[in-house]
Amino acid sequence: MQLLLTYDVATTTPEGRRRLRQMAKLCEGYGHRVQKSVFEITCTDAELLTLLDGAQRIIEPRDDSVRIYRLPRDGFTTVHRLGIAEPIPHHEPLIL
Amino acid sequence: MQLLLTYDVATTTPEGRRRLRQMAKLCEGYGHRVQKSVFEITCTDAELLTLLDGAQRIIEPRDDSVRIYRLPRDGFTTVHRLGIAEPIPHHEPLIL
Repeated sequence: MQLLLTYDVATTTPEGRRRLRQMAKLCEGYGHRVQKSVFEITCTDAELLTLLDGAQRIIEPRDDSVRIYRLPRDGFTTVHRLGIAEPIPHHEPLIL
Repeated sequence: MQLLLTYDVATTTPEGRRRLRQMAKLCEGYGHRVQKSVFEITCTDAELLTLLDGAQRIIEPRDDSVRIYRLPRDGFTTVHRLGIAEPIPHHEPLIL
């Protein structure tokens, strides 16, 4: 299935910035980074469960937010894009 | 139709921070803010064109990115959410 994962991580503390880096690293293992906090992911039901478990272990539930939307089959190709089209390189600094 | 709009605006300059505020204000006119730079939007084809035009006028295409994904009909209700569930109030400071 095709998913869009977005996250907001509170980065006012060193711990928050660490969580942000960990979330990015986790998501890079599952999909393609298209914005700083947005990933396009293709995975199975089982992989989604593993991803959710990994994210749950990283985030601080009172401060952070992760949302995973299911997209239609052609969801990655029918996106409307404005501005920068190319994805951000995976290994650039991850702090917003 | 149901859409998910995400944006990255380069905020290293005052102009960038102004664009970020303008993008948030534009999107608030079309949908529901669920993360700092993520909006759930329900609109018609004509409204989408107006939204795209508005966003095009705001962003700096060399620095910023806007992506609008079409979601399935039940896309807003089947989202997997971790952490903060409630949306961010619309009028809080908009700088990341």
